Amino acid sequence: MRVQDLKGKTIALAASGGLDSCTVTRWLSDHDVKVVCCTADLAQPDEKDITTIKKRMLACGAVDFVLLDARKELAEAGLKVIQSQAWYEGRYWNTTGIARYVTANAIIEEMRRRNISVLSHGATGRGNDQVRFQLATNMLAPDFSVYAPWRDEAFISRFGGRSQMIEFCEAHKLPISATKDAPYSTDANMLGLTHEAGKLESLETPATFIKPGMGVHAAQAPDKAERVDIRFEKGVPIEINGERLSLLDAILAANTLAGRNGVGIGIHLVENRFVGIKSRGVYESPGMELLGTAYNSLLELVLDRRARELFDTLSRVVSKQIYQGYWYDTATQMALRAIDRSAELVSGTVSLAMYKGALSFVSATDVPHSLYSEENASMEAIGTYNHADSEGFLAILGVSARVLSRAGQTMK
Amino acid sequence: MRVQDLKGKTIALAASGGLDSCTVTRWLSDHDVKVVCCTADLAQPDEKDITTIKKRMLACGAVDFVLLDARKELAEAGLKVIQSQAWYEGRYWNTTGIARYVTANAIIEEMRRRNISVLSHGATGRGNDQVRFQLATNMLAPDFSVYAPWRDEAFISRFGGRSQMIEFCEAHKLPISATKDAPYSTDANMLGLTHEAGKLESLETPATFIKPGMGVHAAQAPDKAERVDIRFEKGVPIEINGERLSLLDAILAANTLAGRNGVGIGIHLVENRFVGIKSRGVYESPGMELLGTAYNSLLELVLDRRARELFDTLSRVVSKQIYQGYWYDTATQMALRAIDRSAELVSGTVSLAMYKGALSFVSATDVPHSLYSEENASMEAIGTYNHADSEGFLAILGVSARVLSRAGQTMK
Amino acid sequence: MRVQDLKGKTIALAASGGLDSCTVTRWLSDHDVKVVCCTADLAQPDEKDITTIKKRMLACGAVDFVLLDARKELAEAGLKVIQSQAWYEGRYWNTTGIARYVTANAIIEEMRRRNISVLSHGATGRGNDQVRFQLATNMLAPDFSVYAPWRDEAFISRFGGRSQMIEFCEAHKLPISATKDAPYSTDANMLGLTHEAGKLESLETPATFIKPGMGVHAAQAPDKAERVDIRFEKGVPIEINGERLSLLDAILAANTLAGRNGVGIGIHLVENRFVGIKSRGVYESPGMELLGTAYNSLLELVLDRRARELFDTLSRVVSKQIYQGYWYDTATQMALRAIDRSAELVSGTVSLAMYKGALSFVSATDVPHSLYSEENASMEAIGTYNHADSEGFLAILGVSARVLSRAGQTMK
Amino acid sequence: MRVQDLKGKTIALAASGGLDSCTVTRWLSDHDVKVVCCTADLAQPDEKDITTIKKRMLACGAVDFVLLDARKELAEAGLKVIQSQAWYEGRYWNTTGIARYVTANAIIEEMRRRNISVLSHGATGRGNDQVRFQLATNMLAPDFSVYAPWRDEAFISRFGGRSQMIEFCEAHKLPISATKDAPYSTDANMLGLTHEAGKLESLETPATFIKPGMGVHAAQAPDKAERVDIRFEKGVPIEINGERLSLLDAILAANTLAGRNGVGIGIHLVENRFVGIKSRGVYESPGMELLGTAYNSLLELVLDRRARELFDTLSRVVSKQIYQGYWYDTATQMALRAIDRSAELVSGTVSLAMYKGALSFVSATDVPHSLYSEENASMEAIGTYNHADSEGFLAILGVSARVLSRAGQTMK
Repeated sequence: MRVQDLKGKTIALAASGGLDSCTVTRWLSDHDVKVVCCTADLAQPDEKDITTIKKRMLACGAVDFVLLDARKELAEAGLKVIQSQAWYEGRYWNTTGIARYVTANAIIEEMRRRNISVLSHGATGRGNDQVRFQLATNMLAPDFSVYAPWRDEAFISRFGGRSQMIEFCEAHKLPISATKDAPYSTDANMLGLTHEAGKLESLETPATFIKPGMGVHAAQAPDKAERVDIRFEKGVPIEINGERLSLLDAILAANTLAGRNGVGIGIHLVENRFVGIKSRGVYESPGMELLGTAYNSLLELVLDRRARELFDTLSRVVSKQIYQGYWYDTATQMALRAIDRSAELVSGTVSLAMYKGALSFVSATDVPHSLYSEENASMEAIGTYNHADSEGFLAILGVSARVLSRAGQTMK
Repeated sequence: MRVQDLKGKTIALAASGGLDSCTVTRWLSDHDVKVVCCTADLAQPDEKDITTIKKRMLACGAVDFVLLDARKELAEAGLKVIQSQAWYEGRYWNTTGIARYVTANAIIEEMRRRNISVLSHGATGRGNDQVRFQLATNMLAPDFSVYAPWRDEAFISRFGGRSQMIEFCEAHKLPISATKDAPYSTDANMLGLTHEAGKLESLETPATFIKPGMGVHAAQAPDKAERVDIRFEKGVPIEINGERLSLLDAILAANTLAGRNGVGIGIHLVENRFVGIKSRGVYESPGMELLGTAYNSLLELVLDRRARELFDTLSRVVSKQIYQGYWYDTATQMALRAIDRSAELVSGTVSLAMYKGALSFVSATDVPHSLYSEENASMEAIGTYNHADSEGFLAILGVSARVLSRAGQTMK
Repeated sequence: MRVQDLKGKTIALAASGGLDSCTVTRWLSDHDVKVVCCTADLAQPDEKDITTIKKRMLACGAVDFVLLDARKELAEAGLKVIQSQAWYEGRYWNTTGIARYVTANAIIEEMRRRNISVLSHGATGRGNDQVRFQLATNMLAPDFSVYAPWRDEAFISRFGGRSQMIEFCEAHKLPISATKDAPYSTDANMLGLTHEAGKLESLETPATFIKPGMGVHAAQAPDKAERVDIRFEKGVPIEINGERLSLLDAILAANTLAGRNGVGIGIHLVENRFVGIKSRGVYESPGMELLGTAYNSLLELVLDRRARELFDTLSRVVSKQIYQGYWYDTATQMALRAIDRSAELVSGTVSLAMYKGALSFVSATDVPHSLYSEENASMEAIGTYNHADSEGFLAILGVSARVLSRAGQTMK
Repeated sequence: MRVQDLKGKTIALAASGGLDSCTVTRWLSDHDVKVVCCTADLAQPDEKDITTIKKRMLACGAVDFVLLDARKELAEAGLKVIQSQAWYEGRYWNTTGIARYVTANAIIEEMRRRNISVLSHGATGRGNDQVRFQLATNMLAPDFSVYAPWRDEAFISRFGGRSQMIEFCEAHKLPISATKDAPYSTDANMLGLTHEAGKLESLETPATFIKPGMGVHAAQAPDKAERVDIRFEKGVPIEINGERLSLLDAILAANTLAGRNGVGIGIHLVENRFVGIKSRGVYESPGMELLGTAYNSLLELVLDRRARELFDTLSRVVSKQIYQGYWYDTATQMALRAIDRSAELVSGTVSLAMYKGALSFVSATDVPHSLYSEENASMEAIGTYNHADSEGFLAILGVSARVLSRAGQTMK
């Protein structure tokens, strides 16, 4: 889809209110496109006053602006991420990925109300977000189109990158706050921050280079462990430090608690983007790290070996599906149904100590579906476990082990 | 196998020199069994002077004692663990598991030299180690037998647990150092320490309860980050902080560096033992954590998405095989061959910062097989990547996404 | 558990009415055990008159006999097998495995009604069935015990095998039909027959050695293809050749149709039993093969690549869980939930041709969730698919392919 | 890449000699491109005289023609497919996929000799083959370019499909044999035939619609089983029916034997193409089916449960890698190394009966690494297996089964 195809039409633009949003809005307006800017309220930690975005976007030429409250939906999607333990290596909790679906879904609903059928976004042509916006739209609204200026020659040839956009905005006196010397760019929502590009592209820039937006680096955290108690019921965090909270508030509280202790701040990862390129990100997701780790402490207690093995497989599937744009497809639905069964078993209270970026286990209590039994675990000869039975157990295992050896398979 | 079957025979006992070794040696001697105590030198961090074990075991009635130097073999096996990233959840590096095979192998070779064909060990009847000893022996020497006193009714009915053994040893004036109030028990080798049992059996005992043997808890570590540079060549760490080292020395050096910064100390895990019981361990493995993390930083650079996905699958296979006793079988051999191919690609220098138990990425340089390219990763319109191509890419992906939607599969 | 522990007690015996059942019932009665024989009606194809079992078992000394109608439950369990495509290599449809759970469950319910808490069965000590009976009982009724004569020294030392049992029965004039020269043994239920042991133990006995019980060998089948139309709705076969049928009747009808064409008869497999031993079986499961293949033809149409990949993984998990005794655990429950989502998509009519043991695809019609589109599939330049977009698609894929090459990873 | 970029240049065209090759060669020549037609000799079963292609291609305007003998390379690649059991559902042996790599590699070597750096092919813009050609070229020769006329607007707008090509060739009097009423199209090499498009696009066309090119349909096969003996050594078929053969000849012989019995003829599959589209193919691969099944019969004997599980995972990886274009990448190399270990164990003689399209097991003899033992498998109380040990074995398994139940996880 090219800009010329949009002439005279009304489209929806997923707008964060930043440099891209301003540039795209104005540039499209200049090309005779009526832009309705849509911003999802995701409780972005970097946005002091989300309502100022409206003023900015209208100043850039938007014909209308709408703020869509998607905080509850994002919290619920974030919970699925926790329940699936759907992180990438280096424990990136897919916070940006999952938010794209929530945003796309909220905007598409608004578009239906307004009879708009073209969705535009400012994601670049070599990233993952373009894939998520595209596939979410195609799956949720197959008759809608997606227009991505960063894949349109007209736009690309006009704007080589950040500098030209800043010059363009300054020339048009658009209300941007970006400056040419920003050392990297950040995507934000309440589940986490993704920092990439700029100086972070060099593998000689350490992970501590970023200025945290959701807490402090470990070095700046207090030199004293802080304990936190989290109660889950059927997979949902319902209480933190004795206070009953909604899911949304639990995530926000977890962000505060973990963030101030440097937990989940400055996670570094060189990852394989869906398009096949390696990229490097530094992540913050204190609340997800805290809630996710607490959740896993209970999973350790309730899942037996077979269930855990399957869970780990499903976890990787869900993580990949989120990352690659397939949140709404059949494979995700299948995997989430299986994970639902495990979530039903996750009840109990976990206490963790947060200290200088690390989480350590303090205790787990009141876990009705726990398979752990002090009596059975004990090496002492107590409990229902009869040590002598092991003789038979191992004799049985030994039969095949010896056969393997005698068939010449074991020694090199 | 029962003790009465051993009357008058010479057997080999895998002896650590601790309470179990003393009790078993004496008890077997009392039953007319000739016990050759075999201790593997695994550079155990808790053993000040491994040579004193000889004196102790002979005092307990052993007819002979042999110290088997298996440090190099353990270092090599540890390297396979690193190259396979073969840790369990909670990052337990399988340090005790892998050492059992090295020990069993060393003892079996000695047994062949001495014409002994019964191997005895003090592992309990509900743990994983009995499985590893058994299967390793059955696979390496199918004609040998294994005698495990903890699965023999005669032994079990005599010794209910730790207290009775201490009383027995004291009554016979055997040279034990164990006391009844030891709060937990520890298995040690240079790759790591495993603490379990005793007070650790309660899930209300925090992970910090253990007294570290390979370093300090994060809280006691210096309040200043320490940088470490590690150079790998074809999957092997060959240089630390500019100094060329043998593999064995690299592991020992990594233990010192990471241990003093609280890295890899006090890892907590509730795990599924092979016999199906949940058990709880607290682990130390500073060097494995440091080298393993550095190794993974390079893997992130050299493996593409497909290779990484396969690697992760193989990693879990190897981890499970080690954990469950199957180090010598065909599946392990298959998996390790595949992993060898990935190891060949792992060359380069990684720098990490160690601070209060955490590792953070500082830089990666000189990585010949790296797939990372600043140019390609950049969101700016440079490099060989043409943004407009993404339009075609996404159009193609969009076809199936829309079909899915129109087939009624996407929306709930 | 030993026979002496049962003296004077009432126990339930899972009885097929065959040689084992007769021997065990009489032997237990001789040892002062009151045996309630329980036979599950599984629509066994080899049982002309299931009601005669009662007479036989009472004649062997049983204090009571109960026939439990489990046909509907078995049909439902069989459907789960079809929906999971849970076959082993060589397409053994786990027919014996799945039936053990249905039988155990039916008997356990009866035991609860009668206040009996010991379940006995005649499965041998080296097979899979003992594992299934044991784990099903432990999971469904953790306070019940299992008594397996084939693991009791007293029984084993009395009966070395088949011959001694026949002699025993003849000596006691028990109503057995078994003869010493039966060439192999068979386990039967309406889902399939399992033939093993005896002459089948030799790998030089061909698969055609068995005398089919559910149809004919391919060579005896008609030399003319027979067409069959099967309609599924949300994963359930509801119509065969235009006739609406209950699930149970659909399975029985499929057995007849497929069996007479040699389909699913004489499947040969050397498999790894759970206890680690290789064993060899020859299987019959005509209806499962027919319905399962038809089901898969629809799955091919409705599952996209991602969903299929996950389905295949889950399929293997379910198959292994059934095979190894874990039908009732959490992993199975998780996997089945995911598979439920795929089953909801399986509606449509499939026609297959059956000919001399083979099934071949004739047509698929009326498939609402089908992703197949003649227009999209066509190599001609029609449909919504724009060939030129592929240029961008491949350019994107090519970026990483070239990077791989330049990093020295592709050529040896 | 567009045709105008090629003006005056010399390029290599992968030419089969069919309608596409003729059309493309002439059309490119008309656009001032010098076309060197390269045909790989893959022992195509549909090509009576491969040398006539030269005459045809020159008549179409090619500046040169080269016949590249790739039969041995294809046989070796086919062996990897067998050793990996790398078939898709419905047992499509990836015969077209694997041949693309062999062809691309042979042509690229020739291009290097001739200093040509643009490779062209006639694969369409919605198929898998374009992906394989592209990625193979990018990986083997990253500096080369690929030109695909079916992704070039200039070509597509000139030729909507088959009919226009035929008209074009007729108008230019090019030596084509294709006619407008060909009911489907076929890709051929000695490993197999792929039939698709045309009438096969309708799911109401049965699999028997195709006219076999490598044998007969089951209905036309002899009504008498034919036995075949195949001897493997370290994973390689070295003898068929007592005659020692090269790998290439073994594949050709297997084609003849299996083909005349209807084995591997008319395999039907609706599959997910890499581009996400469902397509439908009917396949022939008699030799692969015969050798692959025989190979698997030995695998059943030599792989234990763990090795088999890993093998199955790797098998699916290799199959997907071949299918999707990634034969030369790191994941494939890793997987093949693991599979090599299993292949080393595959020695022995397998006899199968071929009858009316089906293969059935006759015997397996002389298998040095076999884990099968009649003695161990026997249900009778003989062998090294002690039935009473199972009591301990099951008692151990029962502990966790009961814990699961008591934790409320087992019952719905």
